[in-house]
Amino acid sequence: MLRTHTCGDLNISHLGQTVVLCGWVQKSRDLGGTTFIDVRDRYGLTQLVFNTDTDAALREVSRGLGREFVIKVTGQVIERTNKNLKMATGEIELLVTAIEVLNAAKIPPFMIEDDTDGGEELRAKYRYLDLRRAPIRNNMVLRHKMAQEVRKYLDALNFIEVETPVLIKSTPEGARDFVVPSRMNPGEFYALPQSPQTFKQLLMVSGFDRYFQIVKCFRDEDLRADRQPEFTQIDCEMSFITQEDILNTFEGLARTLFKNVKGIDLIDFPRMQYADAMRLYGSDKPDVRFGMEFVELNELVKGKGFGVFDNAELVVGINASGAAEYTRKQLDELTEWLKRPQIGATGLIYLRHNADGSLKSSVDKFYNEDELKKWSAAFNTQPGDLVLILAGLTDKVRKQLNELRLEMGTRLGLRDKNTFAPLWVLDFPLLEWDEETERYHAMHHPFTSPKPEDIALLETDPGAVRANAYDMVINGIEVGGGSIRIHDRDLQSLMFKHLGFSPEEAQKQFGFLMDAFEFGAPPHGGIAFGFDRLCSIFAGLDSIRDVIAFPKNNSGRDVMIDSPSTIDDKQLNELKIRTTV
Amino acid sequence: MLRTHTCGDLNISHLGQTVVLCGWVQKSRDLGGTTFIDVRDRYGLTQLVFNTDTDAALREVSRGLGREFVIKVTGQVIERTNKNLKMATGEIELLVTAIEVLNAAKIPPFMIEDDTDGGEELRAKYRYLDLRRAPIRNNMVLRHKMAQEVRKYLDALNFIEVETPVLIKSTPEGARDFVVPSRMNPGEFYALPQSPQTFKQLLMVSGFDRYFQIVKCFRDEDLRADRQPEFTQIDCEMSFITQEDILNTFEGLARTLFKNVKGIDLIDFPRMQYADAMRLYGSDKPDVRFGMEFVELNELVKGKGFGVFDNAELVVGINASGAAEYTRKQLDELTEWLKRPQIGATGLIYLRHNADGSLKSSVDKFYNEDELKKWSAAFNTQPGDLVLILAGLTDKVRKQLNELRLEMGTRLGLRDKNTFAPLWVLDFPLLEWDEETERYHAMHHPFTSPKPEDIALLETDPGAVRANAYDMVINGIEVGGGSIRIHDRDLQSLMFKHLGFSPEEAQKQFGFLMDAFEFGAPPHGGIAFGFDRLCSIFAGLDSIRDVIAFPKNNSGRDVMIDSPSTIDDKQLNELKIRTTV
Repeated sequence: MLRTHTCGDLNISHLGQTVVLCGWVQKSRDLGGTTFIDVRDRYGLTQLVFNTDTDAALREVSRGLGREFVIKVTGQVIERTNKNLKMATGEIELLVTAIEVLNAAKIPPFMIEDDTDGGEELRAKYRYLDLRRAPIRNNMVLRHKMAQEVRKYLDALNFIEVETPVLIKSTPEGARDFVVPSRMNPGEFYALPQSPQTFKQLLMVSGFDRYFQIVKCFRDEDLRADRQPEFTQIDCEMSFITQEDILNTFEGLARTLFKNVKGIDLIDFPRMQYADAMRLYGSDKPDVRFGMEFVELNELVKGKGFGVFDNAELVVGINASGAAEYTRKQLDELTEWLKRPQIGATGLIYLRHNADGSLKSSVDKFYNEDELKKWSAAFNTQPGDLVLILAGLTDKVRKQLNELRLEMGTRLGLRDKNTFAPLWVLDFPLLEWDEETERYHAMHHPFTSPKPEDIALLETDPGAVRANAYDMVINGIEVGGGSIRIHDRDLQSLMFKHLGFSPEEAQKQFGFLMDAFEFGAPPHGGIAFGFDRLCSIFAGLDSIRDVIAFPKNNSGRDVMIDSPSTIDDKQLNELKIRTTV
Repeated sequence: MLRTHTCGDLNISHLGQTVVLCGWVQKSRDLGGTTFIDVRDRYGLTQLVFNTDTDAALREVSRGLGREFVIKVTGQVIERTNKNLKMATGEIELLVTAIEVLNAAKIPPFMIEDDTDGGEELRAKYRYLDLRRAPIRNNMVLRHKMAQEVRKYLDALNFIEVETPVLIKSTPEGARDFVVPSRMNPGEFYALPQSPQTFKQLLMVSGFDRYFQIVKCFRDEDLRADRQPEFTQIDCEMSFITQEDILNTFEGLARTLFKNVKGIDLIDFPRMQYADAMRLYGSDKPDVRFGMEFVELNELVKGKGFGVFDNAELVVGINASGAAEYTRKQLDELTEWLKRPQIGATGLIYLRHNADGSLKSSVDKFYNEDELKKWSAAFNTQPGDLVLILAGLTDKVRKQLNELRLEMGTRLGLRDKNTFAPLWVLDFPLLEWDEETERYHAMHHPFTSPKPEDIALLETDPGAVRANAYDMVINGIEVGGGSIRIHDRDLQSLMFKHLGFSPEEAQKQFGFLMDAFEFGAPPHGGIAFGFDRLCSIFAGLDSIRDVIAFPKNNSGRDVMIDSPSTIDDKQLNELKIRTTV
């Protein structure tokens, strides 16, 4: 190797040793007759000293070094006068005796520092420089460590990792499929997988029993919501199990990751029905780092002449405990915030439990003190609390109040990034009605099994059928989801029928899977985790972008390599396609 | 879990226990009042016993079970009368007390046995059934184990696994690129990577120091030569190293894999110059499980009136030791074999060292006994040996003799699949002349560095420039290849110039990398292993197909899912492309 140690290795135990380091010039400064240079690599920083007393020529070289020059230095480890105990190498420095410039560097377009002066676009264009910054670099190391831990945990449980194909087949719901023209089969296309779903089920039919894969998946869709056209899943499937076994196995995975990567013991791992999650949090992925559960008020508030409540399908509120100090102005601002098109709530009613014990509402005209006391009791308010109430159509108002609850949780400091509250949400609906296409869609996917006791409802009340489906939620973010699958051809056909497939369409698209079910398919189920999202939660980031080495922007572009790009006619001709732009 | 044990778990220590197993009916037979059924899962086989004495009804159920039915059985572990000590579970059987059919099965289209009666096409169509067979299943388990071992080894050496993008940019040599139209950027295309080469080099510029990735790569090309359109690489890169460090690190990886996966200590790991490999074996990937090195005869044989030799650029032979018994007919057959168009050798000369010590050649007319003795000495023949000699143009005749050497190695039983002979081949040429395009191509890729002492030759004799490039070869198969890279913008530009790029083309295609070299690129190099190939060698297979769960056929088709396939006009319209078939 060109070096004997890394820039993070040296400490007081190396005093007097002659060592060789390689790395990048982080910064340099001159103090009297001495030049100090910090040299950086992936492992740390080490201070170099060039002293005119020892070698004036060497010091001259050192003064010619710019930021980000790549150097190789030989020197003796000596004790520092001014120790920096916050750094691993802070007690020593290297008295340089020889230096070689391995590569010069132009001045980088932004500072390679934890807090950089580079804007997002500039950093994207020079992603390879942004990756030099410790916060981004650490994310990559974290991601590596998490992948290793996932594999170790699953391997120990007899899961085997099987690579499924990337060049697969487009499906009729393939609106979001990326497709790949085949040169050998002109006029035909592969598709890139949105998930390896059917393949992992086939592996269960093959008897593999416990499968996993950390695998790239692809979705060609609107990227606004912090999505990427290519993303990574931890994809898992098991046979001969019940839902309980899956929950325990992957709760174990989450616990292991938190323990081994972050040193955190997850104490509780509560489970919640989908219906309860919607009723208590207005969301199928509640953030349970804090309470502030919904309280439904229909029975308390209706019939007192307040039209907004009387005409509402649902009146529901939360107790923003400790927010009674909110001024009129702050409440107005909150009301405006709720009116934004993304949320669309038209009116906010409040009940303030003042510090002196008195109650004050924005609808005092309609409700007397006794009635307000009942409200207060329903929310179990204490002096200093602020109850916020919305009214309207059930689904809509729940969504709105969910947004308000999260906002208030943030404002009240209840959503600490270093606190982790996991949750299983269970028993999702099997189907959801799609207004646009006017038919039912699979909420999870068409291979999810209905609860046996609900199968009869498929004919009478499809929307009420519950699925053997579950999501893992951490801090209000869905990190994984899965289901017990259908393993019976007839039931699978019935599902496709209810999803609006003709038998011919179903056979054409998924015949291989339904055929497979006839040759001895075991009961099976599984789960897939969004690995990028999981990493971003562990890294304390709001976006997945900085846990991905080379992400794409909101237009699906990699601005560093300038992709996608046009290709030449020769290539198009060979592929037997042309563009119609 | 539905089961208490797997079908491979139970042995004499479980006698008397009541257990539950799940699995597939492998076979059943009736003997008098007893039915025996073998139930199979991924872990093994267990014999079930149904006895009319104990439960006639149960036995009736058992007789209705067809092959590949999925069952769940409860029973008591009892000792077998006829033990089968070759099976892990062969000392016990399960006296069944309850049975549940989890799924029925149609009769499979071929036998689920180690030696199946299914033809290749049928097995491809029902790949999920073929994967149930132990030989194929074991390949998947082997592959999983190898991937785990690779990760463990590299992780321990501070390599981190970084995922590079799958949606990248097409290059001008992109003839073999798969492309992906972008919906968000109409008229533009991503390409799928043939390797993550440029990204891993950027990660070195980023300071990641030691990178690896087990990663899918894609090549749209002729699939005859046991290739797949998608294949998996172990991709690695290191900074601040010399070639020696890379060789040692990855020799260590190979040793670890052989040790931990196959229990084999690789004793030798010889290194050979490319030039020597060509001279001694006529191949850049010699199979060194056996000797039979080439001996060049020009000086011995020329000028004696034998035109074939006199007019040849090279006369070269091998000693097929022990093949002196070859009959005239066998030699004629060998001559015919050499004439096939794949080889194209026109004449085979032999020298037989008979058991009685006499020498006999096919060109006795031109060479007397004294001369033949000199030949014999050159090949160090012993009684019983057969020397086979070809003559012609150097490159051509070396290739032909390489084929003959391998064939004779096979015929003489010198190429045992359970013997492993690794080798490094070093100092490949940097460039090779392409007859078709009439220009030099990079033998490895354009980022490979020339040997510093050869750079001057780039202008005068490009074909003579040696590269810092190396291949790992096992049993005559190239399993990995890599190089020390260029990390200097000027040298990289020079390379592109010699490869026929204009400065504008080079900048357009690889500007991001050359720009990166200006911001402090460390010296670096790496290697990539063909993971499919490596697995097939470990599995003792000639083809990579059966170490891939869902491979494609020679036309790039997945016949199980029927892909690629046409896509509908709506999708084409959205993508702004049309087909011109």
